[in-house]
Amino acid sequence: MSDNKVQIFDTTLRDGEQVPGCKLNTDQKLVIAEQLDLLGVDVIEAGFPVSSPGDFKSVEEISKIIKYATVCGLTRSVENDIKVAGEALKYAKRPRIHTGIGTSDSHIKFKFKSNQDAIIERAVKAVSYAKTFVEDVEFYAEDAGRTDNEYLARVCEAVIKAGATVLNIPDTTGYCLPSEYGAKIKYLKENVRGIDKAILSCHCHNDLGLATANSIEGVINGARQIECTINGIGERAGNTALEEVVMILKQHPYLNLDTGINTEMLYGISQLVSDNMGIYTQPNKAIVGANAFAHSSGIHQDGVIKNRETYEIMDPKDVGVTESAIVLTARSGRAALAYRAKNVGYELTKLQLDEIYTNFLDFADKKKEVDDKDIHIIIENSKVYKEIISA
Amino acid sequence: MSDNKVQIFDTTLRDGEQVPGCKLNTDQKLVIAEQLDLLGVDVIEAGFPVSSPGDFKSVEEISKIIKYATVCGLTRSVENDIKVAGEALKYAKRPRIHTGIGTSDSHIKFKFKSNQDAIIERAVKAVSYAKTFVEDVEFYAEDAGRTDNEYLARVCEAVIKAGATVLNIPDTTGYCLPSEYGAKIKYLKENVRGIDKAILSCHCHNDLGLATANSIEGVINGARQIECTINGIGERAGNTALEEVVMILKQHPYLNLDTGINTEMLYGISQLVSDNMGIYTQPNKAIVGANAFAHSSGIHQDGVIKNRETYEIMDPKDVGVTESAIVLTARSGRAALAYRAKNVGYELTKLQLDEIYTNFLDFADKKKEVDDKDIHIIIENSKVYKEIISA
Repeated sequence: MSDNKVQIFDTTLRDGEQVPGCKLNTDQKLVIAEQLDLLGVDVIEAGFPVSSPGDFKSVEEISKIIKYATVCGLTRSVENDIKVAGEALKYAKRPRIHTGIGTSDSHIKFKFKSNQDAIIERAVKAVSYAKTFVEDVEFYAEDAGRTDNEYLARVCEAVIKAGATVLNIPDTTGYCLPSEYGAKIKYLKENVRGIDKAILSCHCHNDLGLATANSIEGVINGARQIECTINGIGERAGNTALEEVVMILKQHPYLNLDTGINTEMLYGISQLVSDNMGIYTQPNKAIVGANAFAHSSGIHQDGVIKNRETYEIMDPKDVGVTESAIVLTARSGRAALAYRAKNVGYELTKLQLDEIYTNFLDFADKKKEVDDKDIHIIIENSKVYKEIISA
Repeated sequence: MSDNKVQIFDTTLRDGEQVPGCKLNTDQKLVIAEQLDLLGVDVIEAGFPVSSPGDFKSVEEISKIIKYATVCGLTRSVENDIKVAGEALKYAKRPRIHTGIGTSDSHIKFKFKSNQDAIIERAVKAVSYAKTFVEDVEFYAEDAGRTDNEYLARVCEAVIKAGATVLNIPDTTGYCLPSEYGAKIKYLKENVRGIDKAILSCHCHNDLGLATANSIEGVINGARQIECTINGIGERAGNTALEEVVMILKQHPYLNLDTGINTEMLYGISQLVSDNMGIYTQPNKAIVGANAFAHSSGIHQDGVIKNRETYEIMDPKDVGVTESAIVLTARSGRAALAYRAKNVGYELTKLQLDEIYTNFLDFADKKKEVDDKDIHIIIENSKVYKEIISA
């Protein structure tokens, strides 16, 4: 693996599927997993095998069909969880067990009623036991975002010694600012002995709307894996959106960080996940929302028509959207109207456009969106219609 | 104004309303504007008066009813735009004209077919003319995100001399990384002569999912106004979400940056804007999404029940949401089931819980969400039902 490759760890089928109302059956999971494999993700977290018989079966069936990606199963630092995950993953070409435990004071005190040293002992025991089933063991330090850096570094050192290949540093509550999360990754990269034997992974939640930014700061500061979901789905305000981090890295080549994602598949897989889960993305969702590439205001439309690059930094085709939809509303300017009128067959002079634009604004003030049929009506009812068609 | 006050400039009714399909009539705008005033925003951008007769009327009517906030109207650097905005704002207690022009090479070359010096001349002329109508003039340097910092500083100096009170630095294409946007604001704060006479404003777009993070980096680096919309609505992938930046500043008191927002109104106003525009937020939208405070996975529910602070960093009441909904699915653990069973009247022993949990998982594997009625059914159909009710 090259130093500038950022691994994409997709957890749509595990952390994403935990969303209230998003449960998928095994067949649906298999369809999505197959598409994720073609999308080029490096790791598919397929489920939490011990949590239910349905989840076990899904992880097992996904393991059988995935050709390229690593297939991963979640566990707690509990012997039976790990054993069951090992069984569920037995058919995987590249199996990974993802185990871990909470490391923040809040988790140690309230959730485990334990202490820091005892937690490290449980962590090491879990990683060592997981290594008896698979070579590739990822460790998560739950609530790392609120864990003291010095203690977190001790945890990381201990689990690397026990054989962990990936260290997941989750901002479980979505509390970190980008600068804080970046500094945490930098601290670990610089202070954990043996860190070159493992890769650091970003797992950020979106409670304050910062998951994407935090993950990007993480990889800028040395992490080499991002855990994310299609459409950013996940519990509460969700996880880092796969499509966002992938396109940020692609659109900023000077960062020199690449993923192996076939970006042209992003829009299609977004729709597939939405449809199967029944959780729709809002129109203004970055990259995959219905309006992500649509322009309606006059100022912007004029710019877009003159030169697409004026307002769009991405080519919609790069994410699988075939064209920027120019939508006309009362905010649209003359240039946008002229452009659309031309598309439906009318070449307007400047004076004709002035006349028709006034009618258009009256029309658009009453109707939310003006479509091609409406443009015909507006022009046919104008004083200059005869002049236009006789030209 | 204290040095640590961040002004909230709401542009839901202008930049937000430009969304395809989101057009509001004047009555709807008045209802929303009144709520924004009560929410405590510092500035309401009410529309783009020259763009249509409907927009002019809305700005005029909003100007009449707003008690506390500054009311702002958008213009291009065009004399007639500014004159019309001045007229529309004549009833406002605190009127502001927002004028500006594109400053990036791409805008200067393709949109205006002009050059850098001529653009500065137009900018100064626009600000000077706006000052003949109102004292408070905000200048936007469109596409500042892709404008060379040195030239941008020259533009800022020139318009401050002409009387601009606020300098809006828009990342129009949503291209900047947080570190880049923060560095741009820092550069202007340190290099623009006369910068103490104006405040820097962040106007970020969300094309790559970074609008919120960029705005926060902006204020950390010296900006003192954030331009944002309710629910992050706006063209393409939208604007900075008001509710996100406000809650980030509130949840990170050590930043020492305050807004004057009554956060308990956030959820209600989010719903009001959604309902009026017919643009719904996705369930995983930060702060105001339906699932923002809901927990369903076993690991998390157990933690939440033991201590809310383990997983939630915000009190839902602070944003106007009255309770975290605990939703049961096949991912839910025993603790969550026991908690909900208790809520509906059953105190289960550990052995009873084991038995019922197995039935619950079978049930939940078939049905997406398990509600209170289902819990009764599961328990009534269990082998231990008689034992439970006779206890």
